[in-house]
Amino acid sequence: MKFRSVRQARGNSEFEERKCGMDTLKKYKELLKEIGKLESATSLLAWDERTYIPESAHEARAQVLGKLSKMAFELSVSDEMGQYLEELTKEEVFQSLSEKDRASVYWVNHDYNRFKAIPPDLFEQYTIDRSKSEFAWEKAKAESNFEMFRPHLEKMVDYARRFADIFGYEENPYDALIEDYEPGMTARELKEIIEPLRKDLVSFLQELLNEGEPPDTSFLQGHFPKEKQKELSTRALEAMHYDFKAGRLDVSAHPFTTKIGPGDVRITTRYIETELLLALFGSMHEGGHGLYDQGIDKDLTWTGIDTGASMGIHESQSRLWENYVGRSRAFWQFFYPQLQEVFPRFEEVPVESFYRAVNKVEPSLIRVEADELTYNLHIMLRFELEEGLVNGRVEVKDLPELWNDAMNRYLGVTPPDDAHGVLQDVHWSGGMIGYFPSYMLGNLYAAQIFAAAKREIPSLEEKIASGDLLTLREWLREKIHRFGRMYAPKDILEKATGEGPNPNYFLEYVRDKFSDVYRL
Amino acid sequence: MKFRSVRQARGNSEFEERKCGMDTLKKYKELLKEIGKLESATSLLAWDERTYIPESAHEARAQVLGKLSKMAFELSVSDEMGQYLEELTKEEVFQSLSEKDRASVYWVNHDYNRFKAIPPDLFEQYTIDRSKSEFAWEKAKAESNFEMFRPHLEKMVDYARRFADIFGYEENPYDALIEDYEPGMTARELKEIIEPLRKDLVSFLQELLNEGEPPDTSFLQGHFPKEKQKELSTRALEAMHYDFKAGRLDVSAHPFTTKIGPGDVRITTRYIETELLLALFGSMHEGGHGLYDQGIDKDLTWTGIDTGASMGIHESQSRLWENYVGRSRAFWQFFYPQLQEVFPRFEEVPVESFYRAVNKVEPSLIRVEADELTYNLHIMLRFELEEGLVNGRVEVKDLPELWNDAMNRYLGVTPPDDAHGVLQDVHWSGGMIGYFPSYMLGNLYAAQIFAAAKREIPSLEEKIASGDLLTLREWLREKIHRFGRMYAPKDILEKATGEGPNPNYFLEYVRDKFSDVYRL
Repeated sequence: MKFRSVRQARGNSEFEERKCGMDTLKKYKELLKEIGKLESATSLLAWDERTYIPESAHEARAQVLGKLSKMAFELSVSDEMGQYLEELTKEEVFQSLSEKDRASVYWVNHDYNRFKAIPPDLFEQYTIDRSKSEFAWEKAKAESNFEMFRPHLEKMVDYARRFADIFGYEENPYDALIEDYEPGMTARELKEIIEPLRKDLVSFLQELLNEGEPPDTSFLQGHFPKEKQKELSTRALEAMHYDFKAGRLDVSAHPFTTKIGPGDVRITTRYIETELLLALFGSMHEGGHGLYDQGIDKDLTWTGIDTGASMGIHESQSRLWENYVGRSRAFWQFFYPQLQEVFPRFEEVPVESFYRAVNKVEPSLIRVEADELTYNLHIMLRFELEEGLVNGRVEVKDLPELWNDAMNRYLGVTPPDDAHGVLQDVHWSGGMIGYFPSYMLGNLYAAQIFAAAKREIPSLEEKIASGDLLTLREWLREKIHRFGRMYAPKDILEKATGEGPNPNYFLEYVRDKFSDVYRL
Repeated sequence: MKFRSVRQARGNSEFEERKCGMDTLKKYKELLKEIGKLESATSLLAWDERTYIPESAHEARAQVLGKLSKMAFELSVSDEMGQYLEELTKEEVFQSLSEKDRASVYWVNHDYNRFKAIPPDLFEQYTIDRSKSEFAWEKAKAESNFEMFRPHLEKMVDYARRFADIFGYEENPYDALIEDYEPGMTARELKEIIEPLRKDLVSFLQELLNEGEPPDTSFLQGHFPKEKQKELSTRALEAMHYDFKAGRLDVSAHPFTTKIGPGDVRITTRYIETELLLALFGSMHEGGHGLYDQGIDKDLTWTGIDTGASMGIHESQSRLWENYVGRSRAFWQFFYPQLQEVFPRFEEVPVESFYRAVNKVEPSLIRVEADELTYNLHIMLRFELEEGLVNGRVEVKDLPELWNDAMNRYLGVTPPDDAHGVLQDVHWSGGMIGYFPSYMLGNLYAAQIFAAAKREIPSLEEKIASGDLLTLREWLREKIHRFGRMYAPKDILEKATGEGPNPNYFLEYVRDKFSDVYRL
């Protein structure tokens, strides 16, 4: 009897403990749901602010957005959240959770610890200084005056270093920063990827420009009315099976994708009537982001992980649809007749000429205008500089010179002024140091993922050429989209492609493609 | 010395008291601002739900809206609010406030007391039953089956009586209900207005239909593309000086106006391509609401009174622009060439024929389709029935018969079924008993206000005929709009027109106008 009662007692205690864990889990999920609802409202307010808001409403909107963001943030770092996480991360409790709940607890705890690590006073001061820095950057860029921005950037770099110390790191303070955008990635790994890749890209670029036959793009010039461009973008998105019943395509100055909530993932584009391809490829890019967000499992809704695995993985989806599909010969076999229907003037241009034209390589000063081949070189330059800044090897005052020098070495072009050089991007002014590599990783991941899709989907290119983009979308949903943020970027990559980040796929892809386009 | 120190002590105590009042005032205003921000977010979520939301997003949106509305409501009835109001309504403190602050405290306290009076359990049950009732009504209307709706309506009437008892009243429980929509109005006063007016309207209507010469409306038939209709609505709104920099015109199934925040008052309309006038007059109607909300003083923002004085006063502004301007001969002298520009087919129709056509009187079954003359008869019928229900003189089961009988007596038409009769309006199903008179009051107030404007603005009609609608808008802003909800409806009416509600202006207006249109 004694033995039994001990077992019973133990059993009860375990039961109580599990029950307690379960109650906590329920409350934790309720709290995440409340945060999710606030964030949904915030997303709509922000979407409207960039699309339909009347101009007199901006000031009030900032206040409303500020309040709701603050409320959501405060719940995320509340004592209540802390207590639930403390309970749910206990080894015993954690292991008893379902896989999805474990993933939720893991990532919510991951973010919670980072948020909580920064002393509130420091964070408040940072917010104020960041706002000043962004304002100063805008002015400095408009006047192409780096000196106006320099002291602010110095502050931002100083904050980055302090945050890195607070977050902690093993080898390189930069690792603590990139964690916000690409969890698990390190400066060492980036360097291992970048250094050989850069050499290969720079030499291949030289070869292409010196020996290749550049495509004729003269027929891309002209006037392309907005309404017609919208029709073309809509057709492309429909072909991609972007779900318009769970989304919209609107117009904004800077295109973006936003998940407002389950069943509501909206994208935007912009139309310039002298540019045929800007809106189309922009729409396919945002559409790629949109497919990712639309494909996340519904039962991850408002669990803190109903988002992409990382900035890099998200960017891989936009790049895959923009470049690996949208700039492929197969896609244009299917889509060119549609473009010709919308713009009959192209009836006289052969599809092959058009395909070559949309793949013109041209070293340029501005990252956001860069082509598929040179884009990564813009990123590498930024990574090298920001990693140097964080480690104290580079000083802010030397940035313009270092920038221009690297542009010259990598791309063979020299910025005429800092507005077209070191001042071109907003990121650093907003303290986003460690973000840029996501863009490059997105390109590399896209190559690797598309290569895996080609291996696994029989005759994928023929499918694309016949207008079947659904098979590819379904494969991506199955391998990547549905998991949301359940897995770390490297894990999701390994699940989808069988290996960790491997830049060779990208290199092979650009070599094959551009040797062909440039008739090397 | 003693005397002096007593005075000093008293002075300090007064100072402390006032300071305490001031601190409370500051905190009270902060709280209202927080509520205002939440309501602003709620308004945008609701606007989007009726305009741009993708169809898969409705379920999640309901949850987000529910959460934010609840948060705003909970702050409105919070203990914190109760404490501030208790302090600020103390006679001494209240009298020391500025006029605007007094108005804020007065109305916020007015609503607070009503909200708090209902026991939470009762209110929760009501919310559930109301939701069922609305659902049942929708089905009952679709099947034209009053019996399906009857038990739900009985419940709603029962709630209305209970709420009336809780709120309290002097003479008629109906007075306690109308207070939500038209503060200070009573059933007695409504009856005094309605009974003579109804007789006059019914007999004038008979005279008009029997002896008048109905206008030809055949040329209003045709196909009017949406884009052209939108252009026409936009031109009319621009002429009204609706501020598009602080607003928008969008499309929704049921047109509405919403104040999202300061600098952001949006309206909607709907386009039916076989109906030329629906969108135009709908836009001018909502534009009238919009001008009111756009004209409220900026320093009333988020003080709880940055809204209209009442439903009736708000409706007076929409009706004034829709009918007293939009259906006037003067307006068409100015606007007809614009309409002809947009729809050249009207070049052959004389402006006088067009003016007469837009003023055709036709007794009909449906309130929302009623013309200027018969509209109030629809309301009178509803008032008589709902006032009878609340006082137990009318039973729900007898409504269809009573309805059809009154329709026949007032308008000379008999509903073929309850869908076109007693089931046509949503209001009662949602517990909105006491709301209907606002529509009629809006019409009466509009006549009275427009008559005052004519007295005060030299040659107003010539101004309108020359396209100057700004003088009228400025007069309305000065007399009504800018005050928001500072004054009770009767007070604002008296300030603007020199007297309380007087139905004779309306009667005189319709007699003059329609005798002319119908060539009596």
